[in-house]
Amino acid sequence: MFGSYDLRSKRKQAIMKVRAKVLNATRRWFSQQGYTEVHGPTIIPAVGEWPGHFEVKYFDKKAYLTQGLQPYANVFVANLGKIYTIAPAFRAEKLRTKRHLTEYWRIEAAAKCNFNGIILVQEELVAHICQSLSKEAQEELKLLRRNTKDMIEVKTPFPRLTYDETIEMLQEDGINIFWGEELTWELEKNISLQSDQPFFITDFPVSIQTFFYKSNPQRPELTLSVDLLAPGGYGEIAGGGQMIAKKEVLLKRMAEEKIESEDQQWYLDLRQYGPVPQAGFVIGLERLIQWICKLEHIREASTFPRLFDKIYP
Amino acid sequence: MFGSYDLRSKRKQAIMKVRAKVLNATRRWFSQQGYTEVHGPTIIPAVGEWPGHFEVKYFDKKAYLTQGLQPYANVFVANLGKIYTIAPAFRAEKLRTKRHLTEYWRIEAAAKCNFNGIILVQEELVAHICQSLSKEAQEELKLLRRNTKDMIEVKTPFPRLTYDETIEMLQEDGINIFWGEELTWELEKNISLQSDQPFFITDFPVSIQTFFYKSNPQRPELTLSVDLLAPGGYGEIAGGGQMIAKKEVLLKRMAEEKIESEDQQWYLDLRQYGPVPQAGFVIGLERLIQWICKLEHIREASTFPRLFDKIYP
Repeated sequence: MFGSYDLRSKRKQAIMKVRAKVLNATRRWFSQQGYTEVHGPTIIPAVGEWPGHFEVKYFDKKAYLTQGLQPYANVFVANLGKIYTIAPAFRAEKLRTKRHLTEYWRIEAAAKCNFNGIILVQEELVAHICQSLSKEAQEELKLLRRNTKDMIEVKTPFPRLTYDETIEMLQEDGINIFWGEELTWELEKNISLQSDQPFFITDFPVSIQTFFYKSNPQRPELTLSVDLLAPGGYGEIAGGGQMIAKKEVLLKRMAEEKIESEDQQWYLDLRQYGPVPQAGFVIGLERLIQWICKLEHIREASTFPRLFDKIYP
Repeated sequence: MFGSYDLRSKRKQAIMKVRAKVLNATRRWFSQQGYTEVHGPTIIPAVGEWPGHFEVKYFDKKAYLTQGLQPYANVFVANLGKIYTIAPAFRAEKLRTKRHLTEYWRIEAAAKCNFNGIILVQEELVAHICQSLSKEAQEELKLLRRNTKDMIEVKTPFPRLTYDETIEMLQEDGINIFWGEELTWELEKNISLQSDQPFFITDFPVSIQTFFYKSNPQRPELTLSVDLLAPGGYGEIAGGGQMIAKKEVLLKRMAEEKIESEDQQWYLDLRQYGPVPQAGFVIGLERLIQWICKLEHIREASTFPRLFDKIYP
């Protein structure tokens, strides 16, 4: 049954084996590159205006489920250097698409490096995963009707588009979109269908990006942020960028976004031991698997998928 | 600051490096033994009478945070064979001890094997972790004042005591305990101080054990369950055993425990594709780290510990 927890079919088993092999390849690469594995918390304190967090009844208090390591990464990077985590994240969004789970696993990394540096890390990692699968998951890929050659052909450097160029491209395709609008996943799909390699979109406007990304010094209306898109219509599989290091800049951005800094004291506290220039990214594991295994619906990438209107089981 | 998220001390950094090295050694061992890595869900459906679950506001429904892979392991074992997971688990218990976190990570494994088989897996794994650390974490262990020799000396087979023998031992020590009572962590500490190797306690009475463990065929008042205790007063670091495979036996045990089977339909549904004889175990990662690193309080084993009365931060 499509998307169920019934693993009796060879196809479902192959997907879960690819999932395990992606994790192996990922950790092997991080380990070779000198990254330390860390764990941030799953239960986090008050999130104030940040949307889409699940609420947890934490004894007599309210707490929330994490959306990722970002608030905590700074502490690890400052003291352990290059770090990564592979852990679950949660989004309480009522989205009925073939691309969204409410609970998903993420491959997240951060390092003391600049914007270009973190883009290179992402492409090297994703290329390594694909190259590894082409050798270590031939049987599974064949069963899933994914040509092994597709994986061999994923090679760095991945093409890069700026947000500006992406908007122009879409406009040239006759799509009614203005500079400053968000790229919906339908639009991403459109662009992604035109590529045969994973590719980056960089420099999203401040107005549509999360508050913690640093501005582009040359063009302060843009952020040093980047999405990684899979080809073939699959769209975004990762997001990241350069973080704001200075507390006063962070406070200014939070004020602009009308985020109450009292609710975020814990977030600011985490930055008290000296700001570290750092950049990072998050890969959505199930989205990566969806692309690699050519899955119609993302729920197939998880044995027990959680959708906003359904838990299996 | 003791137990805080301040990683600036060499000591705290060493603990987190040992944690990463324990994870590396664990995965290497599972991989060598042919285990497949899997992920169960974090958000789970209604749990009825099962105590100690955190409640999550899942849109307009109630859901809960997982206490482990056990309800789901059957599906993976039946279709993928030997499996393991490393993931967070949650316990909503108001315990102010040096041994309990409300959020912790677990190393969990299950396989089609018998009771003795799963005990062997546990001891081989733990010995492998200790042997690996004696080579790969010498600097960190030294900084933590843990003699590398202690790790080298962790060797299989680990001693085994039955629950019966343990009660007798405690009674001989002048402790006022009767057969059928639970072993509190204070009692475990007492026994664990008398050992210089990790050791097992097996065959806990049905009356004090979770409902899903199989009875000992020779003595039906006992379960085929096992705890692994660390020496030196650290106590329980793992629990596991042989699971009930037959649905009718499971239903009977649930009725005895007054667990409403309507609330547990999802749990029973997970067993619909044929029961598989299986055994498994869970190692508490932070408890393992607490013993290896000789930590006074378990919160030191986590960078952002969650205690029932405090979240850091």
